[in-house]
Amino acid sequence: MTSRRELANAIRALSMDAVQKANSGHPGAPMGMADIAEVLWNDHVRHNPVNPKWANRDRFVLSNGHGSMLIYSLLHLTGYDLPIEELKNFRQLHSKTPGHPEYGYAPGIETTTGPLGQGVTNAVGMAIAEKALAAQFNKDGHKIVDHKTYVFLGDGCLMEGISHEACSLAGTLGLGNLIAFWDDNGISIDGHVEGWFTDNTPKRFEAYGWHVIPDVDGHDANAIAKAIEMAKAMTDKPTMICCKTTIGFGSPNKAGTHACHGAALGDAEVNLTKAALGWDHGPFEIPADVYAGWDAKAKGTKAEQDWNVKFASYKAAYPELAAEFERRMNGDLPKTWAADADKFISAVNDEAKTTATRLSSLAAIEGYANLLPEIFGGSADLGCSNMTEWKGHKPMRADKPDANYVNYGVREFGMSAIMNGIALHGGLIPFGATFLMFSEYARNAVRMSALMGIRSIFVYTHDSIGLGEDGPTHQPVEQTATLRMIPNMQVWRPCDAVETAACWRAAIERKNGPSVLVFSRQNLPHMPRTAEQLQGIYRGGYILKDAGGTPDAIIIATGSEVELAVKAADELAAKGKKIRVVSMPSTNLFDAQDEAYRESVLPVAVSKRVAVEAGVTDGWWKYVGTNGKIVGLNRFGESAPAGQLFKEFGFTVENVVKHVEAVL
Amino acid sequence: MTSRRELANAIRALSMDAVQKANSGHPGAPMGMADIAEVLWNDHVRHNPVNPKWANRDRFVLSNGHGSMLIYSLLHLTGYDLPIEELKNFRQLHSKTPGHPEYGYAPGIETTTGPLGQGVTNAVGMAIAEKALAAQFNKDGHKIVDHKTYVFLGDGCLMEGISHEACSLAGTLGLGNLIAFWDDNGISIDGHVEGWFTDNTPKRFEAYGWHVIPDVDGHDANAIAKAIEMAKAMTDKPTMICCKTTIGFGSPNKAGTHACHGAALGDAEVNLTKAALGWDHGPFEIPADVYAGWDAKAKGTKAEQDWNVKFASYKAAYPELAAEFERRMNGDLPKTWAADADKFISAVNDEAKTTATRLSSLAAIEGYANLLPEIFGGSADLGCSNMTEWKGHKPMRADKPDANYVNYGVREFGMSAIMNGIALHGGLIPFGATFLMFSEYARNAVRMSALMGIRSIFVYTHDSIGLGEDGPTHQPVEQTATLRMIPNMQVWRPCDAVETAACWRAAIERKNGPSVLVFSRQNLPHMPRTAEQLQGIYRGGYILKDAGGTPDAIIIATGSEVELAVKAADELAAKGKKIRVVSMPSTNLFDAQDEAYRESVLPVAVSKRVAVEAGVTDGWWKYVGTNGKIVGLNRFGESAPAGQLFKEFGFTVENVVKHVEAVL
Repeated sequence: MTSRRELANAIRALSMDAVQKANSGHPGAPMGMADIAEVLWNDHVRHNPVNPKWANRDRFVLSNGHGSMLIYSLLHLTGYDLPIEELKNFRQLHSKTPGHPEYGYAPGIETTTGPLGQGVTNAVGMAIAEKALAAQFNKDGHKIVDHKTYVFLGDGCLMEGISHEACSLAGTLGLGNLIAFWDDNGISIDGHVEGWFTDNTPKRFEAYGWHVIPDVDGHDANAIAKAIEMAKAMTDKPTMICCKTTIGFGSPNKAGTHACHGAALGDAEVNLTKAALGWDHGPFEIPADVYAGWDAKAKGTKAEQDWNVKFASYKAAYPELAAEFERRMNGDLPKTWAADADKFISAVNDEAKTTATRLSSLAAIEGYANLLPEIFGGSADLGCSNMTEWKGHKPMRADKPDANYVNYGVREFGMSAIMNGIALHGGLIPFGATFLMFSEYARNAVRMSALMGIRSIFVYTHDSIGLGEDGPTHQPVEQTATLRMIPNMQVWRPCDAVETAACWRAAIERKNGPSVLVFSRQNLPHMPRTAEQLQGIYRGGYILKDAGGTPDAIIIATGSEVELAVKAADELAAKGKKIRVVSMPSTNLFDAQDEAYRESVLPVAVSKRVAVEAGVTDGWWKYVGTNGKIVGLNRFGESAPAGQLFKEFGFTVENVVKHVEAVL
Repeated sequence: MTSRRELANAIRALSMDAVQKANSGHPGAPMGMADIAEVLWNDHVRHNPVNPKWANRDRFVLSNGHGSMLIYSLLHLTGYDLPIEELKNFRQLHSKTPGHPEYGYAPGIETTTGPLGQGVTNAVGMAIAEKALAAQFNKDGHKIVDHKTYVFLGDGCLMEGISHEACSLAGTLGLGNLIAFWDDNGISIDGHVEGWFTDNTPKRFEAYGWHVIPDVDGHDANAIAKAIEMAKAMTDKPTMICCKTTIGFGSPNKAGTHACHGAALGDAEVNLTKAALGWDHGPFEIPADVYAGWDAKAKGTKAEQDWNVKFASYKAAYPELAAEFERRMNGDLPKTWAADADKFISAVNDEAKTTATRLSSLAAIEGYANLLPEIFGGSADLGCSNMTEWKGHKPMRADKPDANYVNYGVREFGMSAIMNGIALHGGLIPFGATFLMFSEYARNAVRMSALMGIRSIFVYTHDSIGLGEDGPTHQPVEQTATLRMIPNMQVWRPCDAVETAACWRAAIERKNGPSVLVFSRQNLPHMPRTAEQLQGIYRGGYILKDAGGTPDAIIIATGSEVELAVKAADELAAKGKKIRVVSMPSTNLFDAQDEAYRESVLPVAVSKRVAVEAGVTDGWWKYVGTNGKIVGLNRFGESAPAGQLFKEFGFTVENVVKHVEAVL
């Protein structure tokens, strides 16, 4: 029989070979963590290589994503649809094996990792999702949701602040379904970490309320196995297994140094290492007995079949719940959704309320959460300001798993990457809120949701100088504009309760991408719309008010500034000018419309245009063109009551009129 | 004599009154921390209200900046130039007392706080600066740099990830000059924190290597005094004093609840509270004996005078060092700087090297650090990739204070806010580096440097898909564009070694604002320039290549794409077209030029324009206008060798030519 070490060496060999062939990549971590991965994957991870989407599979996250050859090796060896040719194409264009593990490329990759600290945070989100779904769906004698989340992480992840946010919250929520492995190799890119990283990590995690297993020899299969057993036995705390490892294990000249962290070992050293490991095989050659030792297809198929039997019995006892579980894990909306959402938005339209869009957002959450039990909300300690605590919200606590909400605490980045983990897990549609300004604390997690194309909904209130007295540290100026620049992001800044209800709907229906919803602190008036105009909202920009015939000029506005645009158009109409007002709640969505539609809203022939938005202007030149003008704000705000600030910075009907007259 | 409690109650009364008058603000924290502040400020902080800029003053940071009335009260009561009228104008337009403490508004505000966790991180930076300057300037018998940094922080700061980054590093660096006070009141905005924040904070900070003083009664002056004495006695570890406090202390109906966190108490409750505290005075009335008890002008003047005597003796013994200290604390550059920098840039120009701009950046650091011992560098664990480790760099260690560099570890946000603290302290010009992508982890600290107008220099390498195989998680696409949108920021993306040397110079000379320097991983060729063109760099955009007479079209490019623009212009010239090439290393600076200069570079009459940049296009419409085109990248990158990616995404001479021909 093939020894454990030999099985682990297959990971080492593949990692060295692939990095060598690409002449680019990170061999050190896979070589250091190979023994841990071997024990975990061969004896503990419940997964089915034949069906990477099996709902009750254990999740595995490689938070130190630069060690991507570790997970590619595991997926290949255990039998996923990732042939050796893909490993030979490591880091090449259009391969399934990019430099860092990318969600949606190789089967079995649960999340995109690389940006340090976010993988472990995604894992916390997956564990939260499992905990909530287990409470929502399991019944006595029917445990259909019952899996673990395993995560590997390195010193880099532990240095990142987000690891504090995520792991602190994981401790508070008592996530016994989460098991982490720290690759304690004492090396980061700048060298031996003792000059910059001297935390007592076990003590740190004890302070978070974790179950900590210190001093495990990460190259001793028995010690690793024992630690994993202890971790699995602990059901009310997350576990951190601290594994002492040698980076680049096996390399005679580079092991234990940062020389093997982020560069190919070189052909000579690869050969020396293989010799030292007793691995007598050519590049990318894996002996049949080693493949056989790794192959998890039969075991995985059996595991899934066993679960299918359980699920069938659950389905017999609880047919509606079972159907609901299947629907939600597929990410589908209920059949009645479209009609129900139409009805809700109609009702909002009929109410014609003047209210802050953050309050309209609460009403929308209230309305939609009744239709969609998968809505899973939260706020970074601003629930009462962000207006996220709908009547039916149930915050998760360690001892209250039946939840649809998380009090994330003051942890914006952690919240956002946790939301991504929840979305990736499936079965829930996460939203999370903070002030728009503090989207900046979470910026890269927001980007990651767009890169992965997942349904995270970011709710940002207090969207401009309209925030008032808290001053420039809290007043967004450039945030909406910069969020719009993230590829595959849909940013919304609605102007009233109707656009708010519509943008929430669009975000919920956007199965393959995230949305940013930006809401006002202050009241905004209702805008009357025809049915056609209502549909226009879903095109990102539409004619809210027209003048008959070819307009003399067009005013484009978003959010709180739409009211100014409409009033300015009225004043100009009184002076005989024909002014079109375009409400543009989502520039991203408008840009995605066909040319004919865009031309119908913003005809090339009407080049006299003014954009109005309480933020930086640079993004608006695209729409107003060379002959246009922009009423915006290219400086920081000030601390003062909101009304005064709008006047101070020129957000008045008078000033908009002046700008339109200047282009006319 | 006025009792300590009575002195503290002056803070409570002013805080209640000011928030009440503004009907906006946060009374709870100042009322809870008033007793701590009273002991600290009256008996320990060495400061001079008459000269808030005294070089050797202790620094005080209110990291829980929403409690701004605490510090405004302290500044007013101890005798800073902050009259009671300013407190009455709390949170009003153009007052010195904005909603959060803003650097540059009231004298004595050492940093702008509000965005949680950044204040304590600034404080770590100040303590690092003090430690480095003490080592650089103090001599036996002459301790001229010898002060503490005190910081107040709340639960919110401790939940934020950045507190982990900063405090972990502070422990590693053994910052014995840093003393923190945790306002342990058990309340955050969402309510009692036990649902979302259950860290054992003393244990957490012990894990970081801090000196922790737990369980101090934050309303017992003797206990506070004892803790501060213990903290001051500990010189090789930072100290965390854990103060149990009651938020809104004194309020009969709101103390201990989040009702007093972020809203005025209401007139009735203010009166009840004053009665409960035995404070029998009208709004904004402070009895003379209470003023007398607080007045620190005489004590502060004496303290500064004592130091002046010490400094005079130092100056006598070390005249050159003393002059250097004064120059550096003033933030001035050496008299020979301009000539030396000219010489350096001339030499770079003469070398005409083809090299990666990250390497040109290292050469610039090398050149300028020799002229400026105040250059204080660092990298977030990417020194060898960011090319920041110049020959003379000396990393700080706990036992090696004589340093000009910090190995920040994988802590981008912490690094950036620490840099801000160093810049605010004075005496050093901090730069810090990471990959451009991970500017996102630090985004809000970068913004804060722009808001404060301080000289932090952010060095970002690997600036595009040119990063190659690491893939889309590491390839910047929208980052340069979004950084440009921060008001008061100067972003540079130089195209060769000469522009690199020039942008470093501009960043160093920009005393009142930060700069972002964006560098390539890959080689870029030298561009020949006339003396006039060399000066053009400092205007942000300039004609790098012209065709004689009115151009048929203009190509605008930055960084690695300038080469494409020049070659495309050559090809088009061969076809008889007159093409101007504008190199635009800093759009921010170009926008700040007068209209005549801008017109000379981009004449309105030449509306046929193409911009070329390997990033999102939205910001470029401003320059190319309605008739223009942009060769850019509005999607995420891919993992592959850089050369392939440039081709794949259309960054080729051929494609640029095609776009120019399309506009012609």
